[in-house]
This record gives sequence, C-alpha cells and structure tokens, in this order.
Amino acid sequence: MVRLHVPTPLSPDAAVLPTLDQSRYLTQVMRLKIGDSLLVFNGIDGEWCCVIAEILKKGVVLRAEEQVRPQSMGPDVQLLISVVKKSALEFAVEKATELGARRVGLVVTHRTQTQHVRLDRLDAIAIEAAEQTGRLDVPMIDEPVKLADLLDGWEAGRRLMFCDETGGAPVMEALGKPSLSRGEGSRKWAILIGPEGGFSPEERERLRSLPFTIAVSLGPRILRADTAAIAALTLWQAAVGDWDR
Amino acid sequence: MVRLHVPTPLSPDAAVLPTLDQSRYLTQVMRLKIGDSLLVFNGIDGEWCCVIAEILKKGVVLRAEEQVRPQSMGPDVQLLISVVKKSALEFAVEKATELGARRVGLVVTHRTQTQHVRLDRLDAIAIEAAEQTGRLDVPMIDEPVKLADLLDGWEAGRRLMFCDETGGAPVMEALGKPSLSRGEGSRKWAILIGPEGGFSPEERERLRSLPFTIAVSLGPRILRADTAAIAALTLWQAAVGDWDR
Repeated sequence: MVRLHVPTPLSPDAAVLPTLDQSRYLTQVMRLKIGDSLLVFNGIDGEWCCVIAEILKKGVVLRAEEQVRPQSMGPDVQLLISVVKKSALEFAVEKATELGARRVGLVVTHRTQTQHVRLDRLDAIAIEAAEQTGRLDVPMIDEPVKLADLLDGWEAGRRLMFCDETGGAPVMEALGKPSLSRGEGSRKWAILIGPEGGFSPEERERLRSLPFTIAVSLGPRILRADTAAIAALTLWQAAVGDWDR
Repeated sequence: MVRLHVPTPLSPDAAVLPTLDQSRYLTQVMRLKIGDSLLVFNGIDGEWCCVIAEILKKGVVLRAEEQVRPQSMGPDVQLLISVVKKSALEFAVEKATELGARRVGLVVTHRTQTQHVRLDRLDAIAIEAAEQTGRLDVPMIDEPVKLADLLDGWEAGRRLMFCDETGGAPVMEALGKPSLSRGEGSRKWAILIGPEGGFSPEERERLRSLPFTIAVSLGPRILRADTAAIAALTLWQAAVGDWDR
C-alpha cells in the first residue's frame, strides 16, 4: 500500500492535504481514485489509514479514517558523518534512514573537502526513504557543524562509536559485550564517520581521549565514507539496536 | 598513491600497458610524469610498484619495479543478488567489492522485475572499487541465472545465508555462534538477497528446506535490495569473515 509522510496532524476524520507533488504521485503515478486507501504518517500521530476524499486541481484531499499503528521510535542512534561529495552523502542519508538512524548530523573535520550541502535535498531523500522503509518518523538532518564544536557541546550520557581507519577494537568485540546488548548504561548512541582521508592525528587523539567514545575497526579494506556509515549502523543495530527483537 | 588494475602479467622490469582511459587518468587527471610511481595489481601477481617509463600518444608505458604485497584473497564469500534496477545493482556491486565479496552472482527469482543487465558496466564498477579499496583481486560478476538452477547446481560444502523478510533468526544469533566465527566446518559462504517484494512462498519454502541454508532477519524495517546486500555482507565479515583479524 502507498505510504506518505505529511506535515499535518492526523486524527479521526481529519482532512489531510498532501503537497502538489504527492498529489500528482497519487493520481498520476499510482493511479489512485476517490475512495482508494493509503497509509499516512507525520512522525507524531502514528500511522493512519486514509482515503482519497477529493481530487481537485490544487491537489488531493485525504480523509484520515483510523490509526493502524501507534507512534513509535527506533533506538536513539545518530549518524554523524563528515560532509562528503553529494552522491555519497545522499546515499548515506537514504541508507541511514532505512537502517533506523533517528538523526543525521553533518560534520566538518580537518580533512573535510566539500563544504556545500543542500539540506532541502537531503530532507526529501530522508522522507522518501522513511516512506518506503515503513518507519513512523523521518530522521532530522542537521546543518554542518565543526567536529570540535560538536565534541565541546556533547550531550551528557550519549556514547560515541567512531570508526578509526588506523585501527580500533574489532567491531563485534567492541559492540558484542553483553553489557551493551543488554542495554546497561546509556541507550543513547552516535556513530561518527570521517571524510575520505580519515581523521587528523589531533582529531583522533582527542576522540580517543574522551570518556564516552569507543574506537572500532571496520576491517582490512578501505571503505568509502558512505559504505562505512552503512556498515557501522548495520553492526550497531544488529548488536545493540532493535534487530534482535 | 594511485592504484590501477591491469590485465597484464607483473614481474620485475615488465612493461605494463594501461588502457587509453587509464593513461589519460594518470597523465591528465593525476598529472603524473615520467619517473612517478604508482601501485598496480592484476589479481594474480600481487601488488607492484611501477614507474611511468614513457608517455606516448597511444598511451602510457609503465615499468614494474618491485612487488610490494604478495597476492592474497579475502574470505570466500559470494553475494548472490536478484537483478534489481540499474542504480541499485551498481551500488550493490561497488559496495560488495569494498566489503570483500569474492564474487557477485546475479539471480532471477519469481518476483525479479528487471531482466536487462550490462555486465561490462558492472565489471568496470567492480574494478574501480577494487582499485580504491586496496584489495588485490576484482570480484567476478556472473551472468544472471534462475534461482532454481542456482540451487540445483549448488557447490558442495558452500553455506548459504539468505535474508528472509518474513523473519528468520536474529542475524547476530545466527552468525555469532563461536562454531562459525572459529571457522569450524566449511569456510565457503554465499549471501542471497531477494528482489523488492522478496522471495515467493515456494522459493522461501525450498530455501528453508535445504541443508546448507541459514535464514536470517535484517531487522524490523523494510530494506531495499542494495541496502540488504551491504548489511548482510557487513555482518558476515564482522562475525565470520576477516574483520576481526
């Protein structure tokens, strides 16, 4: 069944107005007609079954019928990724959404090459991926921040797994600890992925010196930033997150 | 340092002729000059340091100087993925190469939509990814085969992990067994990824009935085929493959 994210409240009989693009998608791509059903979510009110009530020039009007799933959130894991080239960043955002990252932060490190980011484009990718993957929220994409500032303002109690291409604990050894998978201590995590070329020695030294960090190795082959992000999120979800429930 | 895959033998003082595209890349993109060094591999003779001996109109001539790494192969794991749309398949081949898949097989299942595949394009993507990821071999990409034929001719002793979106063992439980990570029994594996829409009931029933298969679950969210391929390969490498060495 078609699934749409909408920015409007959902309640019994609420009128829901998709965007013009979404309306076109419903009527022209999916060929839906008045009375047809689809699933709608807004990140707050859970998932609702809606029917197409009206098809107007200015767009489709949906009527919310009933909530089919209450609102829920995946584990609290954030992806913090160095700004990399557009295609890799877009892949990382799409895949991080499918892999259940609650939030994606863009980071500027010493060796970050690219600076320009189109947040609106990344938001659209996250929304489409959330619609397809069946989650009930859309990850927030945060403006780029300097790594140093990010660490200065670090949220108390959030753990940070960072992928150190100069080596770290084998990832299963680091994440496989029963204390982690049983969820003792904080359940709030972040995963940090550096740019092509990795972290600078100063950055690595600071990261390793912080009490809330775990350095892990992602194997003997060089991974692109987007691959490392997907691999790290996958391993976290399987070992610590919600893949074993 | 620049890394190139070449199809020619490598031995001391051997003359190595890159393709015209590779030659242009060396001289025009990387701006290398006569006497500059680069790394070269061919999947058989290990990795060699070569110098640019001549720059001719018809291309660059390299001279092999010395072997810097002996030939080695990663673990024997194959990715078997349903033919999916071009962009997803290309992404899966690039990432599978970075994640150390030795071979990529294309599979046609009951619900496989796409049929057309450009193997030459996928080979080029695998070569470029192998150059960048530092591995010494390039995964072979096999022509599409029907799932039934693939299973009929299954290689004795090769295990098959298949990702069953209707549920299976939590993947860490399935792969985390010390007997697997200690490498008892066969070290030969394959990972099977179905199309969007998953396997048909008949396919799933047959897969589950086979003695060499393990059905695993990749969590509560719906994953695109390329995401599932990357996630499954990552988990296999971390739990059973060479990421903990």
